Amino acid sequence: MTVPSFDADRIDRDTCAALDAADPLTPFRERFTLPEGVIYLDGNSLGALPRDTAAEVQRVIAEEWGSGLIRSWNDAGWFDKPRAVGDMIAPLIGAARGEVVIGDTTSASLFQATVAAARLRPDRRVIVSERGNFPTDLYVLESVQTLLGGDSPLERRLISDDGPSLDDVLGDDVAVVVLTHVDYRTGRMYDMADVTRRVHEAGAVMVWDLCHSAGAVPVDLNGADADFAVGCTYKYLNGGPGAPSFLWAAERHHEDARPALTGWNGHARPFDFTVEYTPAPGITRFRVGTPQVLAISALEASLRVWAEVDMAQVREKSLRLTELFMALVDERLARWGIAVVTPRDPARRGSQVSLRFADGYAVMQALIDRGVIGDFRAPDLMRFGFTPLYVSHVDVWDAVAALEDILHTEVWREARFARRAAVT
Amino acid sequence: MTVPSFDADRIDRDTCAALDAADPLTPFRERFTLPEGVIYLDGNSLGALPRDTAAEVQRVIAEEWGSGLIRSWNDAGWFDKPRAVGDMIAPLIGAARGEVVIGDTTSASLFQATVAAARLRPDRRVIVSERGNFPTDLYVLESVQTLLGGDSPLERRLISDDGPSLDDVLGDDVAVVVLTHVDYRTGRMYDMADVTRRVHEAGAVMVWDLCHSAGAVPVDLNGADADFAVGCTYKYLNGGPGAPSFLWAAERHHEDARPALTGWNGHARPFDFTVEYTPAPGITRFRVGTPQVLAISALEASLRVWAEVDMAQVREKSLRLTELFMALVDERLARWGIAVVTPRDPARRGSQVSLRFADGYAVMQALIDRGVIGDFRAPDLMRFGFTPLYVSHVDVWDAVAALEDILHTEVWREARFARRAAVT
Repeated sequence: MTVPSFDADRIDRDTCAALDAADPLTPFRERFTLPEGVIYLDGNSLGALPRDTAAEVQRVIAEEWGSGLIRSWNDAGWFDKPRAVGDMIAPLIGAARGEVVIGDTTSASLFQATVAAARLRPDRRVIVSERGNFPTDLYVLESVQTLLGGDSPLERRLISDDGPSLDDVLGDDVAVVVLTHVDYRTGRMYDMADVTRRVHEAGAVMVWDLCHSAGAVPVDLNGADADFAVGCTYKYLNGGPGAPSFLWAAERHHEDARPALTGWNGHARPFDFTVEYTPAPGITRFRVGTPQVLAISALEASLRVWAEVDMAQVREKSLRLTELFMALVDERLARWGIAVVTPRDPARRGSQVSLRFADGYAVMQALIDRGVIGDFRAPDLMRFGFTPLYVSHVDVWDAVAALEDILHTEVWREARFARRAAVT
Repeated sequence: MTVPSFDADRIDRDTCAALDAADPLTPFRERFTLPEGVIYLDGNSLGALPRDTAAEVQRVIAEEWGSGLIRSWNDAGWFDKPRAVGDMIAPLIGAARGEVVIGDTTSASLFQATVAAARLRPDRRVIVSERGNFPTDLYVLESVQTLLGGDSPLERRLISDDGPSLDDVLGDDVAVVVLTHVDYRTGRMYDMADVTRRVHEAGAVMVWDLCHSAGAVPVDLNGADADFAVGCTYKYLNGGPGAPSFLWAAERHHEDARPALTGWNGHARPFDFTVEYTPAPGITRFRVGTPQVLAISALEASLRVWAEVDMAQVREKSLRLTELFMALVDERLARWGIAVVTPRDPARRGSQVSLRFADGYAVMQALIDRGVIGDFRAPDLMRFGFTPLYVSHVDVWDAVAALEDILHTEVWREARFARRAAVT
């Protein structure tokens, strides 16, 4: 892949328009519904609405539920949806058919995967993660440490950029390493194959969180020889607010895996209604309760778009958009002290760029007020997600121009943009 | 409440039509969309589609997601939905505001509640349930036994109608009792207050599964002094296929409860993104991950209907419908050896009637073929759910007439009604 570089001095809005005209992904823009006048750079938090989702959910409600009623568990394939829709995610993450299943929330799926992973190393008593990991991962691990620890909790070791490093903490006492592939704050990306190899050399099991990877960057779980992964479908995969999570387990672990949430949908013969739990063969044993059909139908509508997408094109455009954004920020915003915290090295970067600015909260509010939607993470990070299916090069140009104008006019100092105690 | 009784000799279809004409709940029938020619007696498995659900989900997709995008987490109240919608369920189950929260699946919520319950009795090592409980409850408890047991699993004791009884197994070593209020196969209902009192006398914590109770019978959790409860919203509450579960915890336990699924939405300050988990005050600590907004919006549409419903009227009609059904079955179907297994005592009966018949599977298929939809549970139970908001007395008459005709003509012996290996 050719990694683009931009000389901001030689770019103008027309250059960006020319890049859009030549972009093979431009036609996908019309597969999404975005409000007039909005530049949406928060698809890393909640993906935009695919054009066909509403009609598909409507069809499922009216025909499958309203008319089919209970018969749709068979006739409309509801019962098998978690696996069928998992198979639609598989090609986006380097998984095989039958290795991915839809779950409930990422937190529950991570619990499910991590318990199964740790149980593969019953004699080891350490779980490794990262201090800067998305907090729910750390909170879930706290619970796993206690529940699996027996009479005393498992030990937790957290790596960080300031140390200790992964190599510092790996040893023959480590059962599981749980890392998020692309960091939610900075957009920094791990080398999945290299990290997995080092974890395996230490004899531990690797669990990847793909929340900011699936649909954002090419992922090759089997190529990296990973063990388990979970991810989110409401960000880059556009499944809708709170869309269900997915769980991947390498086929080699299916037989031995013992998940923690042993619901009847993960039973070998759920309709025998037996008293004892017998895990289903394959990935099905990771299922829990009755699948959320309406939520899954919205996700399925979006994954039909993804079935047409070439992830190599997504990656190339993602790098072009993020390079362009960083070049323009460097050129036009550096004088206000705004700093790019996302790695410059394309191999270490996901599909977002984060900017550090002490008054980032107010600036982001002012930006949203103008229809350029990114988000903010405390204490000082403005995040911008670049979703190549519906964000253009001109959008990048216009977003930086809006940012520059806000900084220049100091409109963000107005009281109405001051911090509120609310979801940001 | 007057418990009706019917003399089947003196009833005809016109009598049933007169009962419908006098029924205060008849107007609710038009709040639901049912296919032409269908008599739906499976609302105990999947509730019918409320008339306004499709439009509400459509609005949430188009306006809140499509236009509001990420802003809707604040502006449309998405983040608070699990509690706000929990408050809509509260009056149906005798709970106070702030005691109910929407979860993921019933299995996950039961895991959440049972771990919290057992942790209130750390020195006791027995969990009690029922052999005939819905299997997912038993499977979840198996996992809880292992995870909470430390170096050896907690002990499980299962009561059953053939013994041992609850009093047989209660003792000062019992931490938690988990029972389903209304049995999914037979429709038998426990006396919630009496059972809870006996459990408390033994010093144990009571967890109720309300899957077949919420919206089916009046429930008074606080009146019964219960501790925890979970339930399902896709049966009598008409939330849609796989609609999310709910979890109730008595207010007195909120401060000390330590759930197992410690996701970021249950954190005291989720947007501080701290490294350590601090449970939120109140029922919020039982939340896990990002709420499934689309699924919750369908449930909310249905609960707006329930807000207008008088549960005493529901109960009265439910008893009338089930009494009528049993009287007609006794009168007209007994000669084929069909037996009612649901308790005759109204105080012990939920809102379904189950019939035992060796060839029940084929008979049910033939019945569904005629548009009378019930379901079947192995090995020999035909289940009929009576949902007073959209099932009429004439429906009951017509259903029994169809059953009688099928038995009389022996149409169910046709090969097309033979058992398939499928979801029934």
